[in-house]
Amino acid sequence: MNPPAPDVPDVAAEARTPTHHVAIFDTSLRDGEQSPGCSMTASQKLRFAHALAELGVDTIEAGFPASSGAEIDATRAIAREVRGSTLAALARCHSGDIEACAQALDGAARPRIHVFISTSPLHREHKLGLSREQVLERAVMGVELARRYVDDVEFSAEDALRTEPEFLAQVCSAALAAGARTLNIPDTVGYTTPSEIRALFEYLRGHVVGAERAIFSAHCHNDLGLAVANSLAAIEGGARQVECTINGIGERAGNCAMEELVMALRVRGAYYNAHTRIDARRLVPTSRLLSRITGMAVQRNKAIVGQNAFAHESGIHQHGMLKHRGTYEIMNPEDVGWSQSQMVLGRHSGRAALADRLQTLGFVVDEARLNAVFASFKSLAEKKREVFDADLEALVLGADARAARGHRLTRAHVSTGVASDSLPTASVQLVDPDGAAISEAAVGDGPVHALFAALARATGVQLQVESYHVSSVTTGDDAQGQASVTARVDGVELTGSGTSTDILEASALAWLDVANRVLRTQQQPRPMAVAMA
Amino acid sequence: MNPPAPDVPDVAAEARTPTHHVAIFDTSLRDGEQSPGCSMTASQKLRFAHALAELGVDTIEAGFPASSGAEIDATRAIAREVRGSTLAALARCHSGDIEACAQALDGAARPRIHVFISTSPLHREHKLGLSREQVLERAVMGVELARRYVDDVEFSAEDALRTEPEFLAQVCSAALAAGARTLNIPDTVGYTTPSEIRALFEYLRGHVVGAERAIFSAHCHNDLGLAVANSLAAIEGGARQVECTINGIGERAGNCAMEELVMALRVRGAYYNAHTRIDARRLVPTSRLLSRITGMAVQRNKAIVGQNAFAHESGIHQHGMLKHRGTYEIMNPEDVGWSQSQMVLGRHSGRAALADRLQTLGFVVDEARLNAVFASFKSLAEKKREVFDADLEALVLGADARAARGHRLTRAHVSTGVASDSLPTASVQLVDPDGAAISEAAVGDGPVHALFAALARATGVQLQVESYHVSSVTTGDDAQGQASVTARVDGVELTGSGTSTDILEASALAWLDVANRVLRTQQQPRPMAVAMA
Repeated sequence: MNPPAPDVPDVAAEARTPTHHVAIFDTSLRDGEQSPGCSMTASQKLRFAHALAELGVDTIEAGFPASSGAEIDATRAIAREVRGSTLAALARCHSGDIEACAQALDGAARPRIHVFISTSPLHREHKLGLSREQVLERAVMGVELARRYVDDVEFSAEDALRTEPEFLAQVCSAALAAGARTLNIPDTVGYTTPSEIRALFEYLRGHVVGAERAIFSAHCHNDLGLAVANSLAAIEGGARQVECTINGIGERAGNCAMEELVMALRVRGAYYNAHTRIDARRLVPTSRLLSRITGMAVQRNKAIVGQNAFAHESGIHQHGMLKHRGTYEIMNPEDVGWSQSQMVLGRHSGRAALADRLQTLGFVVDEARLNAVFASFKSLAEKKREVFDADLEALVLGADARAARGHRLTRAHVSTGVASDSLPTASVQLVDPDGAAISEAAVGDGPVHALFAALARATGVQLQVESYHVSSVTTGDDAQGQASVTARVDGVELTGSGTSTDILEASALAWLDVANRVLRTQQQPRPMAVAMA
Repeated sequence: MNPPAPDVPDVAAEARTPTHHVAIFDTSLRDGEQSPGCSMTASQKLRFAHALAELGVDTIEAGFPASSGAEIDATRAIAREVRGSTLAALARCHSGDIEACAQALDGAARPRIHVFISTSPLHREHKLGLSREQVLERAVMGVELARRYVDDVEFSAEDALRTEPEFLAQVCSAALAAGARTLNIPDTVGYTTPSEIRALFEYLRGHVVGAERAIFSAHCHNDLGLAVANSLAAIEGGARQVECTINGIGERAGNCAMEELVMALRVRGAYYNAHTRIDARRLVPTSRLLSRITGMAVQRNKAIVGQNAFAHESGIHQHGMLKHRGTYEIMNPEDVGWSQSQMVLGRHSGRAALADRLQTLGFVVDEARLNAVFASFKSLAEKKREVFDADLEALVLGADARAARGHRLTRAHVSTGVASDSLPTASVQLVDPDGAAISEAAVGDGPVHALFAALARATGVQLQVESYHVSSVTTGDDAQGQASVTARVDGVELTGSGTSTDILEASALAWLDVANRVLRTQQQPRPMAVAMA
């Protein structure tokens, strides 16, 4: 009952180079792409495969060629063009599947055929109707046939985590003897726990004949939210390849999220004594590319790549962050491809964060003035979800808050054809900071595009919109649509957001939020001291 | 090197009642609500607190009263109305904070004051500027003062996982002696690993003076995707309370997701020998309520509560599922509040799933006919993301696919005022199954509402839309907006979806998808045999 004190994590130790290299096998284009909402065209798959190669992925699983002719074509296009990563294709232990892989991988610099068969009692009995011996025979047949086409063969024992360990070791030994290099141990249904999978990998390394020349691989699903933890535990147990996907896409609740696994190994490198060759700074751009291609967004609080992953709103956290970044951050957002941490000012924010933001905006305020501004800020924050820079500037300048906020949307009208050839048209009316009304109209490719074009004319601000996101849940009275617009202006990334029960209004407010910040920057040279009398 | 074979998970054992009760402490309204995009009004907080009490949460953390007057009012409203759960409010170890809690909790049947102070060297030095002794003194002062107001006091050692274990045990011992009942050990920055946190809980249980009468609690953040795994490991180490949130909302990458933790303990109850008193069937409705209130959606592949959590599209998985649900599911979707598993037909689907769906739709097809329909289905699936029931019916009936699909949208126009008082108006033109054109118009509360109303008039179908979701990422040419509409018709939940680069068109297609299924059901009695000649 009196265990010794665990060590305090040794932050300096984490900087030492870990011993083991863990290969990253990305299956976004196979396990990910076969999940509802994630299907991609051949050209989209090709584009994403290029991004994965640039990210430094060791192996890209491009598809399951036997599933369709289009799948063969898509894989073949990747095989011809993409270099820098091994290219894998999946096959059941059937000759037709394996031949389809060989055909699809033709032209790849480093082709791998990945054969699989279910080994668990449940799958043997109910899915395959095969005995242990029959499964064993098919596994060997599959590996041997694949080896006729390529040197690099991976074998997967589907539902391995619910398979009798002795039988699993027997099948793995046979697959290895038949010529497989990599032995993949999938937790197909996301059922296992970290201690369990670690013990299984240790057992297999001790009992598979020829284990010393095999690369053991983990493939974990996230049905209970444990895919990343289980993959890390498998590494502790000896896994030297992890199968994962960008944004954790995949069957049902998805696969191990690559960005989380890679950063866990980066942040806790000494603990796990393992590293990958992923270029972490490309994680966020790659995540965004996938969302753009599939239309499937990550949630705001998604680790590493979610909009909130490095955002701080509460006063206590902001206060700590301003004193020392390490108080509430274990990674630098820049290291994974974000431009910087986000201090979001809202009603949970405190004086320290407000003072810091005012300083960034170029205001020099004394203690008494800060207290006065803080009181107005708190009162405004009770009414608004987020308080933006323009709001703060208005508060400090002491002008009427609404007038000083920049251009304000008073009216707008959108007229758009849906599934027809009419021209989407938007008209807007703004009130400028001096109180003058401006009306403008524009056409566009769609209602949002037209709205942005009309706003650009009315404000005179041309924004290169880099990303636009809108999300609305339900049509109920209490439902809020949220929109955000990100634009790059003079090398600085500016993000604005808008909230409304109407998704078009939310979009317009988000665009205008960015434009007002641009206008304010142009008008007011910084740093600027304001008389505080 | 030769460890014994791990046990195969004993599925029968999981049915035994576990020994330990783990209390669920929900902090969606505090840690969750203080994260960007999640702020709620007082009435929204009250509504969600009722939902949490119905879910069976042991303790609801309602807020951080010292942060604002509105926060005190919101907490007080919950204290007066909500029954069935303990109600907690958060305070720093400052007299003002604790008094604000006492004031806010006035009227609660089971009030708890939750005091915290940072204990790690990094936080002591950089955030607080306090020595160990000063931290210890303040902790004792905070607990003692809180005990003057309530019997139930919880103490948290912020950043506990980066604190020297001996000092942490010392602070916990002092807090317990001062009158705390619950000792919360937060992994404030989401840095720890399962083995590490388990060892820490074991150490504390052995070294905190009076540990046997304390309830140890875990509070894990998800920065590296490990919050659920770390919370479960803490339970293995002796934690008997877990702090978590619905949908895993919270600072940065959020907190431990309650739905994942609860279902891991349910599915692996024997392994963890622990259970909660959560009514799991309310998990999905509660998750949806939170998304509706905040406008913050969960991603499609989110475990338990995401749209894909129980969806199966690939042929191999569908084939297995049809033979035995356990092949690819470890939980029944009904057990967490979904109506059923989803078999999504797309280009990854195989013959078995197609045959099953046709049977459900009332078609009796022989082998030859099935092969022919399967070929047409594969060809259609190459062009469409998902193949819907209406498409299948068209294929089987052998009619022209487009005409037989039901009402088809040919033109539509939306005219809407944004931030103004003009009437959102939509006009639509449809072609009905007989080829006749129907034009209709309607006004609505917003552009989407108007569009749905016009479609209702044109089709004669009145849908009670239960949920509507639209998501679009970027305005690029390759960006796809996705919309889904769920309506309950005669007790059956029908979901339709639409994809387009225009979010309004995607919404219209999704609504029409549901309406066409309703019309087809009304026209064709089931089961129906079709001549297969």
